[in-house]
Amino acid sequence: MKRVYLDHIASTPLHPEVFEAMLPHLKENFGNPQSLHSVGQEALRAVEEAREKVAQLIHAQASEVYFTSSGSESNNFALKGLALAQRSRGTHIVLSAVEHQSVLHSAKSLDKLGFSTSLVPVDEWGMVDPEEVKKAITKETVLVSVMLANSEVGTVQPVQEIAEVCRASDVLFHTDAVAAVGNVPVNVSELGVDALSLAGNQFYGPKGSAALFVKKGIRILPFIDGGIQEGGRRAGTEDVPAIVGLGKAAELAMRDMEKRAEAARPFRDRLIQELPQRVDHVFLTGHTEKRLSHHASFCIEFIEGEAMLLNLDMQGISASSGSACTSKALKASHVLLAMGIDHALAQGSLVFSLIEDTTSEDINYLLEVFPPVIERLRKMSPLYTKYLEEREK
Amino acid sequence: MKRVYLDHIASTPLHPEVFEAMLPHLKENFGNPQSLHSVGQEALRAVEEAREKVAQLIHAQASEVYFTSSGSESNNFALKGLALAQRSRGTHIVLSAVEHQSVLHSAKSLDKLGFSTSLVPVDEWGMVDPEEVKKAITKETVLVSVMLANSEVGTVQPVQEIAEVCRASDVLFHTDAVAAVGNVPVNVSELGVDALSLAGNQFYGPKGSAALFVKKGIRILPFIDGGIQEGGRRAGTEDVPAIVGLGKAAELAMRDMEKRAEAARPFRDRLIQELPQRVDHVFLTGHTEKRLSHHASFCIEFIEGEAMLLNLDMQGISASSGSACTSKALKASHVLLAMGIDHALAQGSLVFSLIEDTTSEDINYLLEVFPPVIERLRKMSPLYTKYLEEREK
Repeated sequence: MKRVYLDHIASTPLHPEVFEAMLPHLKENFGNPQSLHSVGQEALRAVEEAREKVAQLIHAQASEVYFTSSGSESNNFALKGLALAQRSRGTHIVLSAVEHQSVLHSAKSLDKLGFSTSLVPVDEWGMVDPEEVKKAITKETVLVSVMLANSEVGTVQPVQEIAEVCRASDVLFHTDAVAAVGNVPVNVSELGVDALSLAGNQFYGPKGSAALFVKKGIRILPFIDGGIQEGGRRAGTEDVPAIVGLGKAAELAMRDMEKRAEAARPFRDRLIQELPQRVDHVFLTGHTEKRLSHHASFCIEFIEGEAMLLNLDMQGISASSGSACTSKALKASHVLLAMGIDHALAQGSLVFSLIEDTTSEDINYLLEVFPPVIERLRKMSPLYTKYLEEREK
Repeated sequence: MKRVYLDHIASTPLHPEVFEAMLPHLKENFGNPQSLHSVGQEALRAVEEAREKVAQLIHAQASEVYFTSSGSESNNFALKGLALAQRSRGTHIVLSAVEHQSVLHSAKSLDKLGFSTSLVPVDEWGMVDPEEVKKAITKETVLVSVMLANSEVGTVQPVQEIAEVCRASDVLFHTDAVAAVGNVPVNVSELGVDALSLAGNQFYGPKGSAALFVKKGIRILPFIDGGIQEGGRRAGTEDVPAIVGLGKAAELAMRDMEKRAEAARPFRDRLIQELPQRVDHVFLTGHTEKRLSHHASFCIEFIEGEAMLLNLDMQGISASSGSACTSKALKASHVLLAMGIDHALAQGSLVFSLIEDTTSEDINYLLEVFPPVIERLRKMSPLYTKYLEEREK
């Protein structure tokens, strides 16, 4: 059976060149970077070289990059580390309503420690209005966090404008750029952010590789207490193979990002245009233009996302119904609900996210397989039957 | 030049069978375990199989094992997650004075949130007396943490007895077993612990692989907030290759642990016996019998650890002066100071920790190279010159 992987947002495959770069560190270069002997120093050199590359990718300084184990950890580190370090100045946090669970739930944990959170709404395309952020900021606000790109609906936020609002109010600004970095050009100084999260498995790097950028001079509390790794802010033996892989993935992204985006865009546009033509009651979610170039997301009326995923999988197609971090929770996505999509329709969420190996044949295959899958599922859907009956009247 | 790696405690090499097990997950099996499609489900199966093996190694249930990214993270998770979950019952924590920095510093962070910590002393061999733990426990105590084995001095603690003391006082007990698991038999029910930390790179598994055991029914707060991974207690995309590697390393440890220990013990004993014979003013640190079988640690008078490490490294020997997590801090080890070793002597800490590839020739080489290295360094040591002058008088 043909296998078509269209779930970039859950995890990209590891790039063969990334694998090759990691290989020596899974074999002979097994030292602990904190060891003073040459085996350790060899590992340390590799870690610092990777830090340099990750910094280059986002136009930061190497000393501003802290390695972590996942985008979620980076988000926890940022939210908790920045908010708690600012505690004496105030205890209010502003987030958008469409943040990743790792941001939203970090804020909930902070609430238990005396913080409070305001959620800024989004429009029907999932966009945050910088003016709304401005309105939400109070004298007590110490931190704002708004994502750069949303992995469920692909929308790219006006982060630069939001950062300006924060700077004007003297409030720290973090952006969860996990879905964006490595896929769209990111320049931390142009964006004007104080902290930014990224993850390797979103751009052909390894799982277990991620980083948090924290602007020089910004105080952040350690997330993992202990040894002196990562400037004493994130203790634990460095995961050298993963870090080296992240560095290599950053290097490849600098080289290939544009090419990858150009290749993906026409495929994405075909899906956005043709899927609603081939099947009734299929609606694009997220922004029509300000969206990730590898990302096409829809709501399919009268069917649940899970059923679609399993039936597409039987045809060899891997897709997603939103964030992999919550896929099994089977609740309607808070992102779609925040965009004003009604609960029933939100259940039919479906995301196709392209990878660099995606071919024209893959897209043809999906377009061919999709209508009969949906038709079959709708035949079994009581909601659809009801709809047809009501239309008859 | 001959290369002899005697720094097990900093990091073991990755076992070739572990590498082979990880390989498919660095290549074709790149799915996100939370994805509902078959690529994701394949990854999930691998994660749960690894969880089963890690559980077996410590005689736990799979559902009691949470994967993390390092021993330090496991310790942070345990200390913070258990203490904060018990907060309404009390805010006092008891630790031994020789805990790893990730335990000690986690407690310091908790102190800032209203907790207080008591440190239990150790004897000259680095041993904790369970009676001392008993004395330190107050009505306010909610958590005790004492390590299973100390990586700096090799001493194995009477954890079973300490666990009994805690149980009798209705206080939770965590043990940092990072240096022990995979090297000595560990049975969580026999030990009677409520939580236990372990790390893969201490027994031929990958960096970035670690776990926390939490006994069924014990409440622990999440460490990384976000998605539903690890029962909602440790969010973030699972590092599948690392987890699979940890599982394989656990499987190999069950098979080879005894054999490895038997092979290491005579080498360790030769070092403990012969090094002080070949060089004056060399003292064993840690317990003479109750110690890790791959671990020989010393204080070498009149010389600093760092100088010895660098000079041994020039002879191709990789050793350590204590915890890699603090090696560059160059402070006298808190472990040695707690054992009553004076500050000057503690600076001359040196640890040789054997790996499974260590050969008789390696030990011969070390015994041959060691005396001239020390002699050369002592010639340059003002402390030694002063000592000689005073002896002359």
